Amino acid sequence: MQTTFSAKDIQELPQRYRTNLINSLAGYKQAALVGSISKEGNHNVALFNSVMHIGASPPLYGLLFRPETVRRDTLQNIRETGSYTINYVPVDFIDAMHQTSARYAPEESEFNATGLTPEWLPEIQAPFVQQAAVKIAMRPVQEIPITANDTTLLIGRIEKIMVQDIALTEDGFAPIHEANITACCGLDAYYNTQFLKRLPYARP
Amino acid sequence: MQTTFSAKDIQELPQRYRTNLINSLAGYKQAALVGSISKEGNHNVALFNSVMHIGASPPLYGLLFRPETVRRDTLQNIRETGSYTINYVPVDFIDAMHQTSARYAPEESEFNATGLTPEWLPEIQAPFVQQAAVKIAMRPVQEIPITANDTTLLIGRIEKIMVQDIALTEDGFAPIHEANITACCGLDAYYNTQFLKRLPYARP
Repeated sequence: MQTTFSAKDIQELPQRYRTNLINSLAGYKQAALVGSISKEGNHNVALFNSVMHIGASPPLYGLLFRPETVRRDTLQNIRETGSYTINYVPVDFIDAMHQTSARYAPEESEFNATGLTPEWLPEIQAPFVQQAAVKIAMRPVQEIPITANDTTLLIGRIEKIMVQDIALTEDGFAPIHEANITACCGLDAYYNTQFLKRLPYARP
Repeated sequence: MQTTFSAKDIQELPQRYRTNLINSLAGYKQAALVGSISKEGNHNVALFNSVMHIGASPPLYGLLFRPETVRRDTLQNIRETGSYTINYVPVDFIDAMHQTSARYAPEESEFNATGLTPEWLPEIQAPFVQQAAVKIAMRPVQEIPITANDTTLLIGRIEKIMVQDIALTEDGFAPIHEANITACCGLDAYYNTQFLKRLPYARP
């Protein structure tokens, strides 16, 4: 069984079909909840599948934002406060996590609406997700416009890491599967993972 | 059990520990083999964990390249030919896939060295990986320098898609788990996945 699409086929697909196809064929992603707060004090938590490792030294992650043709609360909040959090929750919280992607009014917190719990640290001006096993505080350092489709890549620097129920290995690897962290694919498919192996540094 | 790192802690970690920590905490990623060819005709296949969905219309994926302080065959090949492929292999091929990350001489093909098989289409000037269940031909459209750490984000447009052993759903979703496509985390950890569910579009 083989299914083939040419560039022309893709262009002519119905929009929803094309969106699902291109999103899902980007492969497995980390399901991440991004916490932020507006300057008026409205809490926000939103689902992203675009966390990208940019570099370890300095410790930088990227996050992709869609074109600003509609309100983008999270990006606006990050610009206002200079702070956001990245959180990974176990598979028990998939329904609540997915529900954060609904379009709530700006003054309505996705925390209240979904049953996720905001958690605060005095030095970080953005809420963590209490139910998360991986909690990372970020500071924005660079906004990169992607002119090919008017998206924005936000580069952020890691300010703090909190890891629960995951025993880091001697060499710093975080076996996030120990906490049943949720993986995803496309816009709406959720996965648990099965650890197979780590391999040594490859030499010819 | 909670493990915490401040920004200062992270800065003071031994390099290898920090690299593993920051890479693995970026979460689950798609393990992708990128095929290319130099203008001299040397085939290249290289492991990447940075495939990023940029947009569905036009169909764009991103790929991150580390600073060009050492030879980067894949990026150089892509610039020379204007073509590359993205391939996802089942978990049976993890060892071969990982081995492509060794530093072979430019004239030595990772295909020969690892037992992966190049597959050609007349209209695409880059090799696919025959063993892959997802094969995507790409054309580079934009190179974006990330000045924060001198990496390069390459934006490419999808030219062709070939999917094997995966039955697309009616709405275009590719259930890549049906072909046991490999997920990864950090630099050297490999995973199979367990499909849990798809959820409907969320409404408040």
